Amino acid sequence: MTTMDTTDIFGKKKSVLITNVVTDARPVDIFIDAAETITDIGPEIRKRHRGEAEFIIDGDGALALPGLTNTHTHAAMTLLRGYADDMVLQDWLSQKIWPLEAHLTADDVYWGTKLACLEMIRTGTTAFNDMYFQMESAARAVDEAGIHAVLCYGFIDLGDAEKREHECRATEAFAAHIKGMNNPRIRAAAGPHAPYTVSPEGLKWCAEFAREQHIPIHIHISETEKEVNDCISQHGKRPAALLDECGILTPRTIAAHGCWLDDAECVLLGKRGVSVSHNPASNMKLATHRALPYPPLVKAGANVCLGTDGCASNNNLDMFEEMKIAALLQKFFWNDPTMLPAPAALEMATKNGAKALGLGTGTLVAGAPADIILVATRIPCNTPLYNAASNLVYSCSGAAVETSICNGRILMLEREIPGETDILKNAAHAAASLVKRALPSV
Amino acid sequence: MTTMDTTDIFGKKKSVLITNVVTDARPVDIFIDAAETITDIGPEIRKRHRGEAEFIIDGDGALALPGLTNTHTHAAMTLLRGYADDMVLQDWLSQKIWPLEAHLTADDVYWGTKLACLEMIRTGTTAFNDMYFQMESAARAVDEAGIHAVLCYGFIDLGDAEKREHECRATEAFAAHIKGMNNPRIRAAAGPHAPYTVSPEGLKWCAEFAREQHIPIHIHISETEKEVNDCISQHGKRPAALLDECGILTPRTIAAHGCWLDDAECVLLGKRGVSVSHNPASNMKLATHRALPYPPLVKAGANVCLGTDGCASNNNLDMFEEMKIAALLQKFFWNDPTMLPAPAALEMATKNGAKALGLGTGTLVAGAPADIILVATRIPCNTPLYNAASNLVYSCSGAAVETSICNGRILMLEREIPGETDILKNAAHAAASLVKRALPSV
Repeated sequence: MTTMDTTDIFGKKKSVLITNVVTDARPVDIFIDAAETITDIGPEIRKRHRGEAEFIIDGDGALALPGLTNTHTHAAMTLLRGYADDMVLQDWLSQKIWPLEAHLTADDVYWGTKLACLEMIRTGTTAFNDMYFQMESAARAVDEAGIHAVLCYGFIDLGDAEKREHECRATEAFAAHIKGMNNPRIRAAAGPHAPYTVSPEGLKWCAEFAREQHIPIHIHISETEKEVNDCISQHGKRPAALLDECGILTPRTIAAHGCWLDDAECVLLGKRGVSVSHNPASNMKLATHRALPYPPLVKAGANVCLGTDGCASNNNLDMFEEMKIAALLQKFFWNDPTMLPAPAALEMATKNGAKALGLGTGTLVAGAPADIILVATRIPCNTPLYNAASNLVYSCSGAAVETSICNGRILMLEREIPGETDILKNAAHAAASLVKRALPSV
Repeated sequence: MTTMDTTDIFGKKKSVLITNVVTDARPVDIFIDAAETITDIGPEIRKRHRGEAEFIIDGDGALALPGLTNTHTHAAMTLLRGYADDMVLQDWLSQKIWPLEAHLTADDVYWGTKLACLEMIRTGTTAFNDMYFQMESAARAVDEAGIHAVLCYGFIDLGDAEKREHECRATEAFAAHIKGMNNPRIRAAAGPHAPYTVSPEGLKWCAEFAREQHIPIHIHISETEKEVNDCISQHGKRPAALLDECGILTPRTIAAHGCWLDDAECVLLGKRGVSVSHNPASNMKLATHRALPYPPLVKAGANVCLGTDGCASNNNLDMFEEMKIAALLQKFFWNDPTMLPAPAALEMATKNGAKALGLGTGTLVAGAPADIILVATRIPCNTPLYNAASNLVYSCSGAAVETSICNGRILMLEREIPGETDILKNAAHAAASLVKRALPSV
C-alpha cells in the first residue's frame, strides 16, 4: 500500500502524503510537510501535494484518527505484567508489587518504558501521562520511541519532613533534566502521588512548583473508599477539599481514578477545570466497587479523559479496549444503556485526553501536531461499517491499527515497527532478572 | 515458521506435526495424524513423528490451547454490528433490530454466519452455540468454515397455538436437515427462545423433542429483572422453576445470561447439571444492572461457561476479550478482587464450554478432537510471560492467535485464512443491501 522505498522512513523528518482514508465519515487525503504538523487535510488534496511528498501511504479506505492519549499509566510496570493477579489490594501490593519494585533499576525502567511505548505505538496511542521512578530512564525511552509523554516522578513523603525534602529535590532535578533534553514531545509534570501518601506541605510545594514552572500536576484521587474515609478521619474533610486547599486543583491537573468522588467534589473539580482520568479496567480488576461518577463530572464541566493505569492492574495499554470497558462500565453501573455512548468514549481517548495533557493534539486539522493513526477497515471488526465510532469503541481492539504517526514521524507502517524484536527480548530479560534479584531463592 | 508448501493444506485432511509450543507451562510437540483427533502430545515427540508428518508447523514458543468455545451467540448478527448502539433495550429492539431482522434472507444469514466464523477462527474460537433464523444457511456456512457448532432455530410461540405448531415443525425440519448433512462437526439443538416468548406447552414440546433426539437445549434465562417479574406475575413462579416443570433443565441444557437468577434458582440449575453461559459484555452494554451470580452457581455445581451474545450487543466475537470482561465484572460486582481468577476464566472458555456443547474438546490430550490454537508469545501482550493464564485473560486479545486448527484441519496458519477478502466483501454487501431493503427511503 505504500510507494517508494521504506528504508530510512521510520522516525525521520519527511514530507508524507496519506491518500484514501476516512475521517468523520468523509474520504480525505492528509499531507504532512517536513514540519511536525498537519499541513493540509481534505478530499482529493493529493492532487495539490503529490509532487512535494517524499513518501506516500495509500490508506486503502482506513479510518484516520488522531493518535489516542493515555492519561494515566505507570509505563515501566509492563515488566510486572502478569506477575501477580487476583489478589486483595493490600496483599497484592505488600507481598508482590512493592518487593519487586524495590529492586527496579534505571535499566529496568528504561526497558519497561521501551516495551510500553512499543505496545502503545502498536495499539494507536501516541501520547501518555506517566508517573513512576527512575524517570530519567523513562524519558530516554520516550525520546527514542518517538511519542508524546508527560512524565513525573512519583512524590511520596508519608508526612516525613526529611523525605519531603528529598522528594522536592528529586522533582526539581527531574524537571530540570527534561528542560535540558529540549525535546518538544516530552514534558515534565509535578507528581504528588495521592492525598494519602503526601502531606499537605508536600502537596502545597508541588502545587507551587507546578505553577512556577507552568507544568501539569499528575495525582491519584479517591480510587478506594478506604482512602476517602481515612482522609476524613485524618484531615476532617474529603480528598477534593484537601487538595483544593493545597492548590492542587487547576486546569493543568490530571486526577486519576476518582471512583469515590461525591457530587460536591465533582462540582469542585468541574469548577477548577480539572481533568479526571477514568481507569475502568484497573478499577474493576482491583474491585473498587464504585465506578467513576461520570454523569456529575460531565455536568460540572470537568474534562473526563481515559487511562489504562499500569500493566500490573490492567494488564495491557490498549486504549481501544479501555474505551469499550469505560462505555460498558458506565452503562452497567448507572443502569442506563444510553450512558457514555461510543462517540463520547472516543472523545475521552482523543480530544479530552489531548486537552488534559495540553499537547494541542487530539484532532485532525491543518496546523495540529501530526499525531495520526490509521485503522484498517477490511477486517472482521470493521465489517460492516455503519458507524465508525461504534466499531472503534465496541468492536475493534488496538490490533486494528496498522499505521501510527507521531509529530509527523512514521513510527509504525502497515504493522511494522523497526527494532521490535530487540525491545521484546531486552524487556523480557529485564523482567526475568528483576524477579531473580527480588526472589534470589526461587 | 512452517515447512513444506502451504498450497492445499488449508481445511484438508493431512497429518500435522506442531513443534516447539508450550502448554500448561511445559514445552511440547503435538502430532495429529490424518484422523481428526490429537494422536500424540508431549515433550520432544517430534522425534517419533517427523517422518510421518505431511506438514510441520514450528510453533516458535507459542502457547498451545484448546480452541475456545463460545456458548451463546447469534452468529449472523455480525451483519448488524454497529447498526444501533447506546439505546434503551426496548427502543433498540423495536426501532432498530427487529425492523432489520424482518428483512433478513437466507443469503444474509449465510454471509453473516460466514463473517462470524471468519472472526471466530481469527480470534481462536473453534466451536460455538448459535440461535437464529434461516438456520439451514447458517449450517452451510459452518460446514464450509470448518469449525464446530451447535445450531438451533429460535422457537418463539408467544402463547399462540398456531404459531407453536409452526415452530414445532420448523424445529423438527431443522434437526432432520442437520442429521441429513451428516457432518460430525455440526449438531442441532432445540431452541426455545426464553420463558417469556415460549408458552409452557412450547417449552414442554422442546424438552421432549430434545430428549428423544438426544440433542442440546439452548435457551435464554433471566437476562433482565423485568422478565423475572413478568414471569412471577404470569406464572406465579420464577423462571427456573417454570423451566424445570417443563423439563427444560437438563445436563444437555445451555441457559444464557442468568443475571437475575436468585440463590434458590442457582441451586436448582446446579442440581440439574445445567450449563450457564455468562455473557458479560452484552449484559454491561445493555445495562442489565446485575451480574451473573457466579459464586452461588459454582457452589451449586452448575457448569458456568462463556458467550459473547450476538454482535449487535457486544459488538464482536472475541472470546479473549470476553474472558477479561467476565473476570473484571465478577470482581467489580461482588467487590472481591480474588473472584473469577484468570485460570477459572480460561476454563470457562475452554473445558467448561466444551462440556456444555458435549463436543469432547476443550483439552489437549491424545484422543481428544484436534481443536488447537497457537497464541504468539513474541508480542507485547505476552512480554514478559510469568503466567500464561494471566496474559491470556488480562493482556491478550484474540489478535494474539496466529494459528487455528479444528478437527485436525488447519483453518488459519500464521494469520492467513484463505478466502477472507471474499467473505468480508460479500458480508459488507449483504449488510448494505439489508439496510436498503429495510429502509428504502434512506
